[in-house]
Amino acid sequence: MTARRYDTVSFLSDYGHADEFVGVVHSVIRSIAPHVVVIDLVHDLAPFDVRGASLALSRAVQYVAPGIVLAVVDPGVATSRRAIAAEVGEDGEGVLIGPDNGLLGPAAMMSGGVTRAVELTNPEYQLVAPGPTFAGRDIFAPAAAHLAMGVPITELGPELDPHTLVPSLIPLPRSEDGAIAGEVLWVDRYGNCQLNVDPGDADALGDVVGVRTGDEPRRSARRVRAFGDLRTGQLGLLVDSYGLLSIVVPQASAATALGLEAGSSVRLEPLA
Amino acid sequence: MTARRYDTVSFLSDYGHADEFVGVVHSVIRSIAPHVVVIDLVHDLAPFDVRGASLALSRAVQYVAPGIVLAVVDPGVATSRRAIAAEVGEDGEGVLIGPDNGLLGPAAMMSGGVTRAVELTNPEYQLVAPGPTFAGRDIFAPAAAHLAMGVPITELGPELDPHTLVPSLIPLPRSEDGAIAGEVLWVDRYGNCQLNVDPGDADALGDVVGVRTGDEPRRSARRVRAFGDLRTGQLGLLVDSYGLLSIVVPQASAATALGLEAGSSVRLEPLA
Amino acid sequence: MTARRYDTVSFLSDYGHADEFVGVVHSVIRSIAPHVVVIDLVHDLAPFDVRGASLALSRAVQYVAPGIVLAVVDPGVATSRRAIAAEVGEDGEGVLIGPDNGLLGPAAMMSGGVTRAVELTNPEYQLVAPGPTFAGRDIFAPAAAHLAMGVPITELGPELDPHTLVPSLIPLPRSEDGAIAGEVLWVDRYGNCQLNVDPGDADALGDVVGVRTGDEPRRSARRVRAFGDLRTGQLGLLVDSYGLLSIVVPQASAATALGLEAGSSVRLEPLA
Repeated sequence: MTARRYDTVSFLSDYGHADEFVGVVHSVIRSIAPHVVVIDLVHDLAPFDVRGASLALSRAVQYVAPGIVLAVVDPGVATSRRAIAAEVGEDGEGVLIGPDNGLLGPAAMMSGGVTRAVELTNPEYQLVAPGPTFAGRDIFAPAAAHLAMGVPITELGPELDPHTLVPSLIPLPRSEDGAIAGEVLWVDRYGNCQLNVDPGDADALGDVVGVRTGDEPRRSARRVRAFGDLRTGQLGLLVDSYGLLSIVVPQASAATALGLEAGSSVRLEPLA
Repeated sequence: MTARRYDTVSFLSDYGHADEFVGVVHSVIRSIAPHVVVIDLVHDLAPFDVRGASLALSRAVQYVAPGIVLAVVDPGVATSRRAIAAEVGEDGEGVLIGPDNGLLGPAAMMSGGVTRAVELTNPEYQLVAPGPTFAGRDIFAPAAAHLAMGVPITELGPELDPHTLVPSLIPLPRSEDGAIAGEVLWVDRYGNCQLNVDPGDADALGDVVGVRTGDEPRRSARRVRAFGDLRTGQLGLLVDSYGLLSIVVPQASAATALGLEAGSSVRLEPLA
Repeated sequence: MTARRYDTVSFLSDYGHADEFVGVVHSVIRSIAPHVVVIDLVHDLAPFDVRGASLALSRAVQYVAPGIVLAVVDPGVATSRRAIAAEVGEDGEGVLIGPDNGLLGPAAMMSGGVTRAVELTNPEYQLVAPGPTFAGRDIFAPAAAHLAMGVPITELGPELDPHTLVPSLIPLPRSEDGAIAGEVLWVDRYGNCQLNVDPGDADALGDVVGVRTGDEPRRSARRVRAFGDLRTGQLGLLVDSYGLLSIVVPQASAATALGLEAGSSVRLEPLA
C-alpha cells in the first residue's frame, strides 16, 4: 500500500549553524528520498525554547510549500515525550513531524487542525544509533523522508487521539480599565517587538498610545502605517506583516530602546 | 504572452538566520515556481547596511548562475523608495530584483548595465498582507518567482527609465603626493581588509609599504603574492581573489591588528 | 572518456555566514553542474581549525548521500600544501575534495580508506582568478562540479600515492592506574562535551564516576542512558549519538558548568 508522495520538507529547529546537525538531517533525507527539496525555515532559534519556536513555526506555516513540515526543538529527547507525525488539511495534504511538546500546536491550528496522528515508534523507519540523543537524525528525518517516498503514515506507528496532543499556550492579552496588558511574542533581528495584541483592539486608545514596560516611565508611541511615517528615534506602533501590533523604531531597535525581549510584559494605555 | 523562464534565483539579504525571514522567502518562491533552485548568497550582512550589501553583491554577481538575483536590504521598506526589477545582459539574460536604493547599482554595472527596468506595482503578482513591512515576502519573492515562471517583466509594473535608478557610491581612492588615500571596502571573516585600491596603482610604493590608519603610528606591510610568503604576525599587502589590494596577517585578523572596519580610512605611503 | 557522474555535493567549510563565500561556491557549482544538489553540512566552524573540522566531517560522513564531499578549511591556501581529490569506497563511489592538511583523513578512514587520489593542478578545470586566496571558488568547487559532470578524476591532475596524504592526529585516551585520561573532542551548541572515550572502557569505573578537569575540585557524574535520567543541574555521562562518551547536564551546558572547550583534558576516575 502506498500513499500520497511529497516533494518538499520545510525544516525548523534549534540546531544552530555551528554544528553539523542541520546538514546531517539534510543528508539523511537526501539519502532516503533523493527527490525531496528541503527548505530551511530557521535553525538559530534559542536552544530549548519551545514557545519561541512554536510561534516562529506558526508565522511561517501559512507560507510553506505544500508537503511536510519537520520541526525539532526537543529538550525532552529520549524521555517519555512522544515523537509524532500529524496530518493537517484535507486528505493528508500536509504533515507536521516533531516532538509532542507543544511545538507543533499553533502551526496545526493555523493549518486547520490535526485530522490524524501517529506516534513514531516503528523501528523499520528509523536509523539505528548508539545513543538516543539525536532524534532529528534517527527518528524525525527518516519519518519525513519515508512519508515523502509514499510510505503510509500509519506504517510509522500506532495512531493516537489528536485530542491528547500537548497543546501550546499562547498568551492572550487582558483588558484592564481601558488599557491592554499584553506581552512581547517575538523580537526580530531588527529589534521590532511583536505583541500579542490585535490592532483593532488598540484602536480605542487613539493615535498616540502610552506604553509601559517594566518599571520604566511611560513612553508614548504613534500609531503609523509604515516605518517611513516616523521620525528618527521615534517610537511607533504598526500593524506588522503578520497582522499583529508591533512596537518599532525606524532603522533602530525598539527592543533595545525599551529593554524588551520575548515574553516581556507591555501595557498599552490611553494618554489621559 | 510568455517570456524567458529562469531556473535559478540567487538570493542576498540582511535578514540574518535568527528569524524565519529567509525560509519564508524560499517558501514563497517554492510555492509559485517549484522548479526554481534558490542559491543563498549571504544573509548575515549588517542590518540596513546598503553599501556593504551592494559591495558583497558586486563581488558575487560575476559568479552567480544565469537567472535572477534577488537582493533585499531595505531600510526604506514601505516608503517612497521604488521596488524594481532590472534586466541586465543581452535579451533579458539576467534580472536583478530589489529596492531601488543603490543596492543593485554595482551589480548592474558588473553585469553590463541595465537594459530595461520596471517598478513592481502590479498587485496581481504580489501577496496580500496585513502590514507592509515584509516586502521580501510580499513583493520581491513573488516577482522573482513569477518571472521564473515566464511572466513577462513588463507585466509586473510600468517601465521606468534606467537612468533614474539610484546610483551607488563606491568610494574612489585619492592620490596624495605619491601616497594613496583609500578606505576599507570589506572586512571578511578572517579579518582580511579589502581596500578600494588597484594593485597596479600601489606598485610605485615599492615592496614594503607604509600603512597609516587613524592615529596609529605608521606600520609597514610587505607586498606578497600569498599568505605563505609572510611570517606569523607579519603585515602584508596582497592581491586578493577579486583583484583588489588587501591588508592581511597570515592566520590572524588584520582588522583586529590595525583596528580597521569597513569604511575605515587607510593611507598607503612610500617608506621614505 | 567519461566516468561516473555524481548528483550530490556535501559541503563543509569554515567560511561562516557573514560573507558570500558559501554562496559563491554554490554558484560556481550550479554554473558548471546544474543538476547537482549541494548539501551544506556546516560552515560556522572556527576559522582555520583543521582538527575540529576533521572531526565534524568524520561525524557527518557516515550520513552523507552518495557522491562528492567538498571540505575547505585551508589555513595554508596558496602555499605548498596540495589541493587533492581522493576516491573512497568501491569503484569511485565517493570522492573527497579539499586541501591535503589532515582535514580529510578521519572521513577517508570512516569511508574505508582512499583508493586513488590526484593533485588538483590542471588549470583547465579551475577558474582564473586575480589572486590565489579563494581556492574554494577557484580550485575546489570547479573540481567537484566537473567530477559531478563525468570528468574522470585523473583529468584533474597527476595521481599521487595515497600513503603520502597528511594524516590527521585524533588524540587517543590513556589508561592511568584505573583512571582514563581523555580529552574533549567537541562541544556542541547545547554545551554537551564529547570525549575521546569509548563507553565500554569506562564501565569499570562504575555507575558514578569522578570527573577531573583542570584545577577544579573533582566532580561526580552519573552514567545514564538519556538526559531524562538526570535531575536539573546534575552532571551525567551518556553514550552520545555517535557512540562516544559525553559529559552532559540536562537542558544546560556541561561545557559552561565545567569550563570545558574542545581540546580540554578530562580525567575520569573511580570514586574511591
